[in-house]
Amino acid sequence: MAADVEVICIGNELLIGKIENTNARWLAQQITRLGAVVKRITVIPDSIEAIATTILEAKERKPSLIITTGGLDPTFDDKTFQGIAKALNQKLVVNQIAYEMVKKKCTAYAKKYAISSDFEMTPECTKMATMPANATPVNNIIGAAPALHVDLGGTLLFALPGVPKEMASIFDNAISIVIKQIVGPYSFLEKSLFLEDIFESRLAPLIVKVMNDNPGVYIKSHPICSPNSDSLELHFTMSGGTPNSVETLENTVKELTFLIKEKGGKIITSGL
Amino acid sequence: MAADVEVICIGNELLIGKIENTNARWLAQQITRLGAVVKRITVIPDSIEAIATTILEAKERKPSLIITTGGLDPTFDDKTFQGIAKALNQKLVVNQIAYEMVKKKCTAYAKKYAISSDFEMTPECTKMATMPANATPVNNIIGAAPALHVDLGGTLLFALPGVPKEMASIFDNAISIVIKQIVGPYSFLEKSLFLEDIFESRLAPLIVKVMNDNPGVYIKSHPICSPNSDSLELHFTMSGGTPNSVETLENTVKELTFLIKEKGGKIITSGL
Repeated sequence: MAADVEVICIGNELLIGKIENTNARWLAQQITRLGAVVKRITVIPDSIEAIATTILEAKERKPSLIITTGGLDPTFDDKTFQGIAKALNQKLVVNQIAYEMVKKKCTAYAKKYAISSDFEMTPECTKMATMPANATPVNNIIGAAPALHVDLGGTLLFALPGVPKEMASIFDNAISIVIKQIVGPYSFLEKSLFLEDIFESRLAPLIVKVMNDNPGVYIKSHPICSPNSDSLELHFTMSGGTPNSVETLENTVKELTFLIKEKGGKIITSGL
Repeated sequence: MAADVEVICIGNELLIGKIENTNARWLAQQITRLGAVVKRITVIPDSIEAIATTILEAKERKPSLIITTGGLDPTFDDKTFQGIAKALNQKLVVNQIAYEMVKKKCTAYAKKYAISSDFEMTPECTKMATMPANATPVNNIIGAAPALHVDLGGTLLFALPGVPKEMASIFDNAISIVIKQIVGPYSFLEKSLFLEDIFESRLAPLIVKVMNDNPGVYIKSHPICSPNSDSLELHFTMSGGTPNSVETLENTVKELTFLIKEKGGKIITSGL
């Protein structure tokens, strides 16, 4: 079954271009490889209003999953749980399971760095365990801030931390299995051809013909602009679970290769 | 004056994680440095419906500018102009100025690569010049596909190509001046402190105090996770145009530095 996923990345640092949004690409790759489809990635500021609005907009489009990243840490600007609570019209409460998760992490951390012998949970530590009433905490093996999931009614929302290795670990441990359960035996196949000596505009009608001949295969051309060449990449993709998907993709590549050569184009390499 | 900008990146290749969305970060950096504020970045598929819907949603939020990237090339999957036309309920027409731009580029290209002595404008070449009726073409110095701008009524929409060097050239030549005109003498200031030996949760109340003491300065903490350290970056930002903005930012950094040292934290380096 198809599973649509929306990714919402929360953080002013992304909107000022301070950091590359590597989380979005990493999630897009993992989700695609699992056979699901990322329909939208939205980057928004650390604002309760923006978080709540964006979640509600995404929910309206009825994806199987919404995954947020960022905004789970103890500082004032981490507002994801508050935004989710606002979107769901739920109260924020200290979740006891999450509280124990945070306490365990912080105690271990304080011990390791010998910061204080009388470690206690500050309001900021408690904030990391203060979640919308209906949410279920998800353990963060690497960092202190627990993630959560909550059922929006047909759509499952996961809120992950923004730190890439924490985000990736929780995705791998808690989300990938959920996606695979929805998607079933579907998979994602891809293949690339690199070519030159043909205009993209001359190539366009050939692509349309070959796509019509091979339903289910999507072909996209990407200009590759290096100082010494104006070559093109043709990227073939297919989501499917039938035993002959691989063969269909291979046949599509062959058919287009033939048409390109007929028009004087040259295949440089065939990737993936 | 504040200028809000929304960026919409169009392309399935971004949603499958095939490529890093470097355009979004580059635009975010440029727009921020010009003193404007990127309020949202949305990544959507090559779908007329998604493009039209996303533009209309952005328009509702009344930003000064909407900038789209991608989808201007001649292949079937480049649908930005169709999406804009749908959003604006306008017809698509061959724009004669854009047509001449494309013809000039393609003729020169054909001559350079000696592809054909009888070069003519194919339907795919003409597609690059087929724009919503009210749009104004913007010359693309580097590539063949013209960009465009169109007034949405209070919001100016620019549609840029997805190839990074083409996108950047058009931004520099045509958009940066528009942003600067709206923004005026406002600018963006930033400074970073890198520190260790202090919990992010212990730091949180200090940040809140210092932000309250220095209105206009925004401080965000970022954990830096390297194998050998658990240090933090504190990033101070300020948008403003008053002569003493620089001094305000410096004073804020000094005040927080004092409080951090008082709590046993250690400043490693001060960046930017």
